[in-house]
Amino acid sequence: MLIDGINYRTIWWNAETKSVQIIDQTVLPHAFETLHVTTVSEMVLAISEMRVRGAPLIGASAAWGMVLAMRENAGDAFLEQSASALCASRPTAVNLRWAVERMLDVLRPMLPADRPAAAHGLAEVICDEDVALNRSIGRHGAVILRKMHETSRRPVNVLTHCNAGWLATVDWGTALAPVYAAFDEGIPLHVWVDETRPRNQGAALTAWELGRHGVAHTVIADNAGGHLMQHGQVDIVIVGADRVTAQGDVCNKIGTYLKALAAFDNQIPFYAAVPSPTIDWRMKDGLREIPIEERSPDEVARISGRMADGKIGTVDLLPSGSSAANPAFDVTPARLVTGIMTERGIARPQDLRTLFHQER
Amino acid sequence: MLIDGINYRTIWWNAETKSVQIIDQTVLPHAFETLHVTTVSEMVLAISEMRVRGAPLIGASAAWGMVLAMRENAGDAFLEQSASALCASRPTAVNLRWAVERMLDVLRPMLPADRPAAAHGLAEVICDEDVALNRSIGRHGAVILRKMHETSRRPVNVLTHCNAGWLATVDWGTALAPVYAAFDEGIPLHVWVDETRPRNQGAALTAWELGRHGVAHTVIADNAGGHLMQHGQVDIVIVGADRVTAQGDVCNKIGTYLKALAAFDNQIPFYAAVPSPTIDWRMKDGLREIPIEERSPDEVARISGRMADGKIGTVDLLPSGSSAANPAFDVTPARLVTGIMTERGIARPQDLRTLFHQER
Repeated sequence: MLIDGINYRTIWWNAETKSVQIIDQTVLPHAFETLHVTTVSEMVLAISEMRVRGAPLIGASAAWGMVLAMRENAGDAFLEQSASALCASRPTAVNLRWAVERMLDVLRPMLPADRPAAAHGLAEVICDEDVALNRSIGRHGAVILRKMHETSRRPVNVLTHCNAGWLATVDWGTALAPVYAAFDEGIPLHVWVDETRPRNQGAALTAWELGRHGVAHTVIADNAGGHLMQHGQVDIVIVGADRVTAQGDVCNKIGTYLKALAAFDNQIPFYAAVPSPTIDWRMKDGLREIPIEERSPDEVARISGRMADGKIGTVDLLPSGSSAANPAFDVTPARLVTGIMTERGIARPQDLRTLFHQER
Repeated sequence: MLIDGINYRTIWWNAETKSVQIIDQTVLPHAFETLHVTTVSEMVLAISEMRVRGAPLIGASAAWGMVLAMRENAGDAFLEQSASALCASRPTAVNLRWAVERMLDVLRPMLPADRPAAAHGLAEVICDEDVALNRSIGRHGAVILRKMHETSRRPVNVLTHCNAGWLATVDWGTALAPVYAAFDEGIPLHVWVDETRPRNQGAALTAWELGRHGVAHTVIADNAGGHLMQHGQVDIVIVGADRVTAQGDVCNKIGTYLKALAAFDNQIPFYAAVPSPTIDWRMKDGLREIPIEERSPDEVARISGRMADGKIGTVDLLPSGSSAANPAFDVTPARLVTGIMTERGIARPQDLRTLFHQER
């Protein structure tokens, strides 16, 4: 998507420096900086420090991590060791494992000498596929937004949680793909952006990318969405997901479940938008089976932002002696989900398998 | 309650300086400072800037504001003008209007010369009554916490939102009164403290006062409560309220409704703890009738905390060009409320009137 008129993806191969280049998402929206990642261990760090984040982008980053690994040492031991390190860098998003396993399936049978080029080619394919999947999600989702506008003749008010925009993917986004597709068609839209504590990916990333693309939006505290829904100010909720189970349970950023409850209570449609690599056909009951990452209490206890002098500063929020807990994801049971938007179309959670016959 | 071994209330008359002294709650938990309020217009500002906050404390502050007004000018015109200014300083809490009207009922029929002393006496009564009401709420609520512990033989996990502790009242608190009463009885407890964006009264005030009293607690992002409830880590939710309607709808800090939905979805009891001045018998349907204060977007866009050098600093969170909305309260419908804890005992919302026969 566009930043100041220049078209970007979130991750790409830089042939000159022979490194993977990423947008450093930890300094947005206060600074726009890219980083060169040159080794697999640097990529593990970039993922765990959330310089790249978002389930689809984590998958793409892991694929590029395998490319870097094969350029360092294409032997069997380093192949397996790098795959394990990448898989362990974040526990919740299924795309990470999906991308690494796809790499392993191709690379394991090969001679080491052939691995670097094959890994490189597959990483490019995974990235291009992600872009294509997300465009397709956008086209399907935009149909719903267009119908809503045609019925109400008012701008469509979308509420989203966290960042599932193009910054969370290679391009286009998942939850925001329908928003961008509808916006580009000229459908009047406004997005309520949950700030999404503790890391504020909504206020920092979603607001930033919507602003760059010219989409009307308003940032709200995570607490505000239920009140807006009670008062008719939200027409549809669209979120991304880190993992969707075969029965349609949606694991996404902590707090998503609360918005799903409020949408259900106010008869507002609640959708998760995901490319198929985010669907974990091996899991059924998301609440019991999906591992939930517990991140550092510091993310709750401290917050960074732009100081008066323009520099990024960090402030402590808690009294001394108080501690914090920080579960990073929650699971929204399928019973609260109106539909799953995928590249193959939109299905009710219980009908998700019918879109993907071969995985049955 | 105790701060460093010294017993404090949140507001008191300082006879030496002839001013009302308050704890400045905008600098907690990073600094403990008191302010001298000497005129009614200073009190209006202290309330609107939230140096004092919490429905019961706002009521007490308004009463003291009327005392200051009568010391400045005890004439009829200034009496009415001061009452109006105080009532307009915050729109949602009913205690404000309740305290001002109680003052007016006493002061209006009097000769101006008699008003300052009468106002002073009544302000002291309102404060002492608040303390007594809250102690009584605590005794009633603690019975529930004790029973929970006797059944589970584990520490009772209480989740609370915003600050309805002693800092929100003259002393003891409303939602936290049962916690303090149970803690003082030796019942093992742990409190999940919602940080409560945008003003972070949970992280700043609730954590601070629980810590000073020695109550085990953990601060969480507002997004986390639903997940904790899904996983059996919350036994009871207790919140305060800015207004409870005759049918038991609970208006409280924005985000309370989301926690009530999650409690209901997980069969966890959800209580609002309020002294009777917080009950608005004139209103029935809270969603339609209670005015919801919209506060400055700056409260969402910026946040203050303690910098590395110990000073309080403020950082901007939003990208330039993005704006925010900031509704300060929401309404939890009575159907989601297990009970209302009051000084007269605990009732289901539909039975609230039976506790208060004379208001029928």
